[in-house]
Amino acid sequence: MTYPRYTPLARSLPATVPFVGPETQERARSAAFAARIGANENVFGPSPKAVSALRDSAAALWMYGDPENHDLRHALATHHGVAPENIAIGEGIDSLLGYLVRLMVGSGDAVVTSDGAYPTFNYHVTGFGGVLHKVPYRDDHEDPEALFRKAAETDAKLVYLANPDNPMGSWHSGAQIVAAMEHLPEGTLLVLDEAYVECAPEGTAMPIAADDPRVIRMRTFSKAHGLAGARVGYAIGAPELIAAFNKVRNHFGMNRSAQIAALAALEDQDWLANVTALIAAARTRIEGIARQNGLSPLPSAANFVAIDCGRDADFAKRVLDNLITLGIFVRMPFSAPQNRCIRISCGTEADLDAFAAALPRALDRAARG
Amino acid sequence: MTYPRYTPLARSLPATVPFVGPETQERARSAAFAARIGANENVFGPSPKAVSALRDSAAALWMYGDPENHDLRHALATHHGVAPENIAIGEGIDSLLGYLVRLMVGSGDAVVTSDGAYPTFNYHVTGFGGVLHKVPYRDDHEDPEALFRKAAETDAKLVYLANPDNPMGSWHSGAQIVAAMEHLPEGTLLVLDEAYVECAPEGTAMPIAADDPRVIRMRTFSKAHGLAGARVGYAIGAPELIAAFNKVRNHFGMNRSAQIAALAALEDQDWLANVTALIAAARTRIEGIARQNGLSPLPSAANFVAIDCGRDADFAKRVLDNLITLGIFVRMPFSAPQNRCIRISCGTEADLDAFAAALPRALDRAARG
Repeated sequence: MTYPRYTPLARSLPATVPFVGPETQERARSAAFAARIGANENVFGPSPKAVSALRDSAAALWMYGDPENHDLRHALATHHGVAPENIAIGEGIDSLLGYLVRLMVGSGDAVVTSDGAYPTFNYHVTGFGGVLHKVPYRDDHEDPEALFRKAAETDAKLVYLANPDNPMGSWHSGAQIVAAMEHLPEGTLLVLDEAYVECAPEGTAMPIAADDPRVIRMRTFSKAHGLAGARVGYAIGAPELIAAFNKVRNHFGMNRSAQIAALAALEDQDWLANVTALIAAARTRIEGIARQNGLSPLPSAANFVAIDCGRDADFAKRVLDNLITLGIFVRMPFSAPQNRCIRISCGTEADLDAFAAALPRALDRAARG
Repeated sequence: MTYPRYTPLARSLPATVPFVGPETQERARSAAFAARIGANENVFGPSPKAVSALRDSAAALWMYGDPENHDLRHALATHHGVAPENIAIGEGIDSLLGYLVRLMVGSGDAVVTSDGAYPTFNYHVTGFGGVLHKVPYRDDHEDPEALFRKAAETDAKLVYLANPDNPMGSWHSGAQIVAAMEHLPEGTLLVLDEAYVECAPEGTAMPIAADDPRVIRMRTFSKAHGLAGARVGYAIGAPELIAAFNKVRNHFGMNRSAQIAALAALEDQDWLANVTALIAAARTRIEGIARQNGLSPLPSAANFVAIDCGRDADFAKRVLDNLITLGIFVRMPFSAPQNRCIRISCGTEADLDAFAAALPRALDRAARG
């Protein structure tokens, strides 16, 4: 067959996708979910000021967005007390991870991550021919020192660490990660995914200079800011590295209304405080529902709670499948032993009412095999 | 320096960007443009139904978009009389061109395009290590037969052709391009960019089976549909090639409201007819303004008109610079001899009033050197 004439790398790539979306599952079951609490979206929504900004900018969407993301980049710089040259903006953290991997990882280059951490990062690494080395979780936490030691052992270009962690919700203090960096080898870039950090206790964000060339931090408007569907993420890093994104990024890739909405969301810190309180309350309620059903919720600093179903992965998978059958969209960790858990995103009262009603039935059905 | 440890390819890439945005120029001149008619945006805007869809979906932007783009993909398939498996959706044609180049072009692979054609395609080819071979325009038209012969000569993986052409506005009938494909060598994929085809005369779209493995056609909601800032493009091609995009695309990259707005725009064919009539009228007015100033407008099947300034590239550049100084955002072709022209996007009455007022002054200043 003459067509298509892929590159050898493209030909070798699997056809798998990182995640199946809830809409796909809804189409398969021919019914909408009663609760959409599986993708760690923020059910409490974006700031009303961001919603107003979206509505007000709708008719002007005939214009391309500013390819320099000037206003949002400058506002983020001010917010974080860094220079605009420390900030790269992209179509969600997913796209920024893709650009970063493309810049750094070629065929056969080593990359380190945790076994069971963010699959989309792995998708990008594989997609550019990198070789993944996986380090196990320790007590349901990502293990910075072990990750950095593995990076030294494999001469890794990148090491990925999410803090707070997804899917477990566990976290380290930023100071602990800085301390562990004594084990980070020269030449390995730490990709610190802080997607959930706005939901976490004070001190979780990494206290490190934005110009430090050893680390790039990823942030997003998809979680606490409630704009997952807008696709706005950003990276904080050393200026030379940040500038390199200009070599490969889709310069006109940002949705113009998303740029405007993210700026409005950033400026509404009161709403952010309100939402993070609602998230904390929802975590507490999820923990209560778990305990009422004899299950063990794991402590979480994110907008979801991993619940230990108390048995093996097969059991947790049956619980999950039954929840989905009962109209509750949730997900679960991919790797052992974390896949003894299911992962419940913070929901509205109504979402968690539906979850509370469904969980006993799902557990009962799962127990019957 | 240990950091950053780029790939050799990334290290070699230039820091140039395909286009400077009008916002950058506005910041540089500390004033807004009076007329934004330089980026071939659609000043007449999207369908009011698309605007309503954007407004109605704003508060729900806490949800990720459907990574399968199911509803839009199926609606596009019905619209074009093809199967959903013939349609790939992405964040504008720019992102789809990037994904396609990534799938097909590795280090040293040959790619053919016209000298002066779309720079973002070239940006992607260079970005993945491909080698560009450029064919001159012929009488201000892209030259399909010469492009395909060059592809044969260089064993090109891809050959790019825009119909209608940007920046010249010239076009071929779809049947002419099909006829020229007898010169397309086995194994070269024709990337036919039909971004402007909704503005063109009947018969410009290529009449070819969607399953034909020799061609992939690119379409967009950025031009006639007036949603440039939304970032929605799509490709029509053979199912195997379309499926391959799933190996590399940013699955959750689409803005959720953009998916919804594009669907509403597609369903409002009356609005599209209304807008394409407004575009045709604006072309006629631009032609008139050119002639009133002793200049030669080129025939255009797109939403812009290239105006031959009648002298050399330096003169056209001075006309352009003076227009920009006078608050009129326009652009011009990059390569000789097309760069004797300036390129004016279709504007509102007010935009073209401003252009008509500024052009004589710009010409006068340019003539004085």
